[in-house]
Amino acid sequence: MRKIVFYGGVSLDGYLADESRSLQWLFDADNGTPMNYEAFIDTIDTTIMGRKTFEEALMYSEGENLYPDQTNYVFSRSSQEDKEGFTFISEDLVQFVKKLRAEEGKDIWIIGGGNLLKPLLEEDMIDEWWIQFTPVLLGKGIRLFEEGTYRNQLELLEVEKLGNFAELHLRKKQAE
Amino acid sequence: MRKIVFYGGVSLDGYLADESRSLQWLFDADNGTPMNYEAFIDTIDTTIMGRKTFEEALMYSEGENLYPDQTNYVFSRSSQEDKEGFTFISEDLVQFVKKLRAEEGKDIWIIGGGNLLKPLLEEDMIDEWWIQFTPVLLGKGIRLFEEGTYRNQLELLEVEKLGNFAELHLRKKQAE
Repeated sequence: MRKIVFYGGVSLDGYLADESRSLQWLFDADNGTPMNYEAFIDTIDTTIMGRKTFEEALMYSEGENLYPDQTNYVFSRSSQEDKEGFTFISEDLVQFVKKLRAEEGKDIWIIGGGNLLKPLLEEDMIDEWWIQFTPVLLGKGIRLFEEGTYRNQLELLEVEKLGNFAELHLRKKQAE
Repeated sequence: MRKIVFYGGVSLDGYLADESRSLQWLFDADNGTPMNYEAFIDTIDTTIMGRKTFEEALMYSEGENLYPDQTNYVFSRSSQEDKEGFTFISEDLVQFVKKLRAEEGKDIWIIGGGNLLKPLLEEDMIDEWWIQFTPVLLGKGIRLFEEGTYRNQLELLEVEKLGNFAELHLRKKQAE
């Protein structure tokens, strides 16, 4: 079965973005060390993100579609017109992801955390994680892991120092 | 100058302990892989912890002093009688740590996070970090990093996979 995957950078204190939703701290930490992104994106044919993440990604990319080879879904409580390369979805996220997962295909990337990720955590639906911890403490902002009712067991597969980033590769704990 | 150091394990979502203040998830993850603790504790002659951390450590150790070779301070808002091997302190934490730091000695270990660590973060007083990320998501509990008004730049020195734990070694960013 295709996997549901999280891949992304967070501050050491667990924030995806600061209070103003800026990612400047992340760009500041990047010293050009090659990451494992190219190998990762080759395993993905579908992305899912929230509306705010979509808008910010578009702003940072100056309108360019960062995922042109993927099918891209944007979750939004209010129904919106689709934009080229992006389909807006307002149905239940968990049901939608379960439906996608049952189809044939490469893996599915959940882009962003917070309110998008939380219901998937509560259903323990994330199969694999690539987290790049960045050596900065932001104090507040948008959390990767929102507080919620879940306790999920993972396995640590690998850790790697990639320039200023500590990349942790984990997966859902496998039955013994 | 002697350093102010944090050393400790957290869940992947940044909790030092779960809602019931249990550490069972941490013991469950420990598969007996040797950690770097012995080398670390040799660099420490002073520990500082909060009252709850003190009480739990004592409970887990069945009354044994886990830090018999160190001078141990316990912060408590209400003044309390000292216990053998532990001195209770109710003065201002930041001032107390600054005073200790100005004295001769080995490094100072801040045990625990949350309300004890936060004022030190707001003054950017932690010089070095040894954080063991544990592959479990707890959903809620006692955070290592309480929300606060700080933005601290660190440097990642090293990452290491120690059994199920990902250990990150960091220090305060040095002036260039």
